Amino acid sequence: MIIMLKQNHTKEQRESLLEALREYNVQVHKVQGESREIIGLVGETNRISTDSISKFDAVERIERIAEPYKQASRSFQSKDTIVDVDGVKVGGGHFMIAAGPCSVEDEDLMVETAIKLKAMGANMFRGGAFKPRTSPYSFQGLGKEGLRRLQVAKQETGLPIVSELMSADNLDMFVENVDLIQIGTRNMQNFSLLKELGKIDKPILLKRGLTATYEEWLMSAEYIMAGGNTNVILCERGIRTFETGTRNTLDLQAVPYLKSKTHLPIVIDPSHAAGIRDFVTPMSKAAIVSGADGLVIEAHPNPEKAWSDGQQTVSLETFESLVRASKPLLDLEQLQI
Amino acid sequence: MIIMLKQNHTKEQRESLLEALREYNVQVHKVQGESREIIGLVGETNRISTDSISKFDAVERIERIAEPYKQASRSFQSKDTIVDVDGVKVGGGHFMIAAGPCSVEDEDLMVETAIKLKAMGANMFRGGAFKPRTSPYSFQGLGKEGLRRLQVAKQETGLPIVSELMSADNLDMFVENVDLIQIGTRNMQNFSLLKELGKIDKPILLKRGLTATYEEWLMSAEYIMAGGNTNVILCERGIRTFETGTRNTLDLQAVPYLKSKTHLPIVIDPSHAAGIRDFVTPMSKAAIVSGADGLVIEAHPNPEKAWSDGQQTVSLETFESLVRASKPLLDLEQLQI
Amino acid sequence: MIIMLKQNHTKEQRESLLEALREYNVQVHKVQGESREIIGLVGETNRISTDSISKFDAVERIERIAEPYKQASRSFQSKDTIVDVDGVKVGGGHFMIAAGPCSVEDEDLMVETAIKLKAMGANMFRGGAFKPRTSPYSFQGLGKEGLRRLQVAKQETGLPIVSELMSADNLDMFVENVDLIQIGTRNMQNFSLLKELGKIDKPILLKRGLTATYEEWLMSAEYIMAGGNTNVILCERGIRTFETGTRNTLDLQAVPYLKSKTHLPIVIDPSHAAGIRDFVTPMSKAAIVSGADGLVIEAHPNPEKAWSDGQQTVSLETFESLVRASKPLLDLEQLQI
Amino acid sequence: MIIMLKQNHTKEQRESLLEALREYNVQVHKVQGESREIIGLVGETNRISTDSISKFDAVERIERIAEPYKQASRSFQSKDTIVDVDGVKVGGGHFMIAAGPCSVEDEDLMVETAIKLKAMGANMFRGGAFKPRTSPYSFQGLGKEGLRRLQVAKQETGLPIVSELMSADNLDMFVENVDLIQIGTRNMQNFSLLKELGKIDKPILLKRGLTATYEEWLMSAEYIMAGGNTNVILCERGIRTFETGTRNTLDLQAVPYLKSKTHLPIVIDPSHAAGIRDFVTPMSKAAIVSGADGLVIEAHPNPEKAWSDGQQTVSLETFESLVRASKPLLDLEQLQI
Repeated sequence: MIIMLKQNHTKEQRESLLEALREYNVQVHKVQGESREIIGLVGETNRISTDSISKFDAVERIERIAEPYKQASRSFQSKDTIVDVDGVKVGGGHFMIAAGPCSVEDEDLMVETAIKLKAMGANMFRGGAFKPRTSPYSFQGLGKEGLRRLQVAKQETGLPIVSELMSADNLDMFVENVDLIQIGTRNMQNFSLLKELGKIDKPILLKRGLTATYEEWLMSAEYIMAGGNTNVILCERGIRTFETGTRNTLDLQAVPYLKSKTHLPIVIDPSHAAGIRDFVTPMSKAAIVSGADGLVIEAHPNPEKAWSDGQQTVSLETFESLVRASKPLLDLEQLQI
Repeated sequence: MIIMLKQNHTKEQRESLLEALREYNVQVHKVQGESREIIGLVGETNRISTDSISKFDAVERIERIAEPYKQASRSFQSKDTIVDVDGVKVGGGHFMIAAGPCSVEDEDLMVETAIKLKAMGANMFRGGAFKPRTSPYSFQGLGKEGLRRLQVAKQETGLPIVSELMSADNLDMFVENVDLIQIGTRNMQNFSLLKELGKIDKPILLKRGLTATYEEWLMSAEYIMAGGNTNVILCERGIRTFETGTRNTLDLQAVPYLKSKTHLPIVIDPSHAAGIRDFVTPMSKAAIVSGADGLVIEAHPNPEKAWSDGQQTVSLETFESLVRASKPLLDLEQLQI
Repeated sequence: MIIMLKQNHTKEQRESLLEALREYNVQVHKVQGESREIIGLVGETNRISTDSISKFDAVERIERIAEPYKQASRSFQSKDTIVDVDGVKVGGGHFMIAAGPCSVEDEDLMVETAIKLKAMGANMFRGGAFKPRTSPYSFQGLGKEGLRRLQVAKQETGLPIVSELMSADNLDMFVENVDLIQIGTRNMQNFSLLKELGKIDKPILLKRGLTATYEEWLMSAEYIMAGGNTNVILCERGIRTFETGTRNTLDLQAVPYLKSKTHLPIVIDPSHAAGIRDFVTPMSKAAIVSGADGLVIEAHPNPEKAWSDGQQTVSLETFESLVRASKPLLDLEQLQI
Repeated sequence: MIIMLKQNHTKEQRESLLEALREYNVQVHKVQGESREIIGLVGETNRISTDSISKFDAVERIERIAEPYKQASRSFQSKDTIVDVDGVKVGGGHFMIAAGPCSVEDEDLMVETAIKLKAMGANMFRGGAFKPRTSPYSFQGLGKEGLRRLQVAKQETGLPIVSELMSADNLDMFVENVDLIQIGTRNMQNFSLLKELGKIDKPILLKRGLTATYEEWLMSAEYIMAGGNTNVILCERGIRTFETGTRNTLDLQAVPYLKSKTHLPIVIDPSHAAGIRDFVTPMSKAAIVSGADGLVIEAHPNPEKAWSDGQQTVSLETFESLVRASKPLLDLEQLQI
């Protein structure tokens, strides 16, 4: 950790800071620059919060050298984590393709869709039972009944189930019925919820916050891992930018960045990113060759009849051709489904 | 609601959309433009979610005419809402000044600080018992014990208590001990939590999400109001921008904007906005003359010893001179504390 | 164009607006909604600036239906534009790979690098003679002498030259020495310069502004085309986001979006996007499969000795393996270099 | 300047970097941290560009300690710069109020408006002769004739003239006719133009780029000052954020920030910030109490008839009451017009 002192700090202000630093178990290196003094801290600095230092009057600003995350870090574990989602491996050369409608709908349709998607190449089935909606007047999902229908689809196909959890109140229900618990973009920094996830051992699909940095995202993964649950898959789903032609901007650079910084798998959701169904295939292909470990895709037999997010949902025909176009790319990247 | 059709839609795609529109209880107006057709919907369109329309292949994009929020809207209630926080009025000419340390600290210090702040002009006392921290390794607050200490400070001073709630699990504890329940920036779209807040009648201080638009913010207020709790105070606390010289960018235009769109009170938190204690006084003054209904300020007897957020916390001396400088401005704006 | 009136406009305000609308050669459709009145304009509305309407007191807001650009639009010309850069075709199935150092350096090194890059698969040679630098104290490029050295490299290899123009003062010099004139991100809305580019017939490589929307970018292309120069290639080079782990965020969704809206070619610059040389290969591959028409890549025999932008510059060995990895993808996409 | 080395750099990579550092005239301090090595450079580091260091394979990232700007810095000159605009002082307690229509319009209207604005309290007159428009089909300003009309208004009132320069081609014309040359938001990083401005001694009103950071903005001021022209006034005019309820977000924290970092005056343009005329008065008041040195306001006898930007233009009546409301605030801040 590097501390840059203000140019015009007083002797008392400097002493007040140094006194505080002495209480940490770190070495203190002082470098007198041309225009200002710099203090370098060496030791277990990821235990020191930046705001415990920046509060001192003598301090101009602070830079961390070491990453603030630890267990999520590639330097903590160099080997790729392979997450096992009820038998389907993700990461380290294993590719996941989760597909299904945005919301859980009628039971027959769910089962029929799951059967077809599996035949086309999907290896997980996704559907929302609890829906985060910006309007209190919008459809909020089928709730518990939705999870039951997902279970029926699983029994028919064997596909592991992916579904979003919005509240710790429903955690037990999810542990029982869901194989990969999705945490949505708006809950990425719901720290109370993250702490609860650390106490279970189900795999977590942690979506990136709408405007979260990589570091904030990894810190949220760290929350879960610090609690003891290391089965975390990161999911890039588009970030908010000024562009209005698409709903969000897919950040594929996240893939090589995260591959260098963490051992956790990283998958791409091209449906939510653009919010436009025609973009799902090109962005899925781009995700594969950029090094991603999987895809999460909204697919529905009739997108115009989908209960939610229809505009970004592909038809089963499109999904089939998407998988067909992906095959040679997966081969080139030596990835196996 | 205006629906713009794609230029090259097919007859079937158009018919598929029109068929769906017939199921809503709205009038359908068609306008054939030079380059494309437009459909205007007239009626209770705030019950129609945009994604139930945009999913149709014929649709290029959609614009809402009416605001998606209802009870929060100035057209629903023209008169300013005045929220009563255990006797302290906020809105409609009544100005609140909540002050106190970021985190609840030692009991004696809390009581002593509350007494001084009250004497200087604060009419509420704030302090965090549950702290949202980006790192699982940072101090997470005193929890329930923190609320107890806030209660002691209230007993000594009579100042209503403001504190942040992070999880519905603690709601009862907050209803009992806190007078103005703060929802932090990261939970502005924690819809599960917002629904719970709708069921109580305690005043809520709803902070703006880090990159939320005014409309998203008002929709979160609507969540609470739709549940039956209309005691909502909005709090602007800075938004994320590309600027790194300050922590966040204070958006004071929010004040005149919200005054025109909603009847709810709007207050300003200049401490979190810049994250720099020297900016708290000028931005507090700017908030007052821009038309805000109050201030939320982090103050501490010794900011360098504050347990958290010390860099943005003002000393009691600074708080005193801030209030002194604010007095003539409050008079000019005809606001009463 | 759709005009939404304010809810509480007066009769006079409304009349004042309608009077102004009568002066335009457009049809005026009025729709009385539940909460407010809407006016639809039909006709040549791209000649009406939004601010000539929004200034009326009666107006709440305005939405354009037709795109504000015309010649750049896919509906103006459905067939892909193929730009001819001194014999190298770009667009409509023809793929360009421009490579070379950030700045023009020593003559021998330039010639030798161009020869090697050509052998490896590049079909254009790039180098900066005039450099836009945020600091007046940084190296500003070799200027005219730089263009001369690029010409020498061209004479030795036959590769067309790509270089950035910063000021209309140097336009003649560029027309004489450069085959594809690059307009950098900071000049995308230098309208005076864009107008001058409309008067020549050299191909233009128009980089996206750092935070420009697709529409603003296409409007800048329209400036050039409106002047008579239709040889415009669009170049996505990363946009500014909150992410600090990379310099900018590459927006590959721009490719399918622009392909649907414009007939102009779109190429990707993965070097400037991340600002990290290790990301150039994966993002180049992603660009190809997302449908891009080319790549612009910074390459140097010894990136650590590069005069500028070395951190994002790949070595010649890396460039060679990048092209090798791209070949099967170009084949799959049926693109020819 | 602090250089953080990669965790897994090789000996050769490290040596390659150190060899390069030896060529700079700086002291090199090495600190071996727990997880990685840090190198501190002491000396005239603002002559070292970051990209000349970050290109080395051994380097993870770099932090500047000293500001990259020099002449613009408060540490270079502690006393407030007072810019003299043809007799009207700006900065150091002197407050400017520039007002006038967005575009130069009919001569009589310009003269009449200037006379009234002066009587109401304006001390400069503004109007656009050359207009930066996103569409090539929009009105582009009266050009040279516009400057002539501004001169007539000056002759009648004595008010110094403020107008925007878009191209170095017109520099002589501006030096002759304009007293405060405005550089618009889209040209803030038009480095070729900035260099030309350094060669004259007319005062420059440098608007902040739409998404520029404070540091980038000050670096653009530095470009002008490095050329020899120290008469620079900074103008905050709103930055691009995700908010769509207003056109841009006014960043008033820029005022205290810049006051601490630079000696140059800083003024506020509340018209362009929100793009809404009703917000001009509250934001003008907020600007004054936040410590700004002046205001730039679009005012017109009949905003609905304004040739451009009418929606953000205040009427003369509103301008008059704005000045009246500002008077007590200017007195409290001890500012003189």
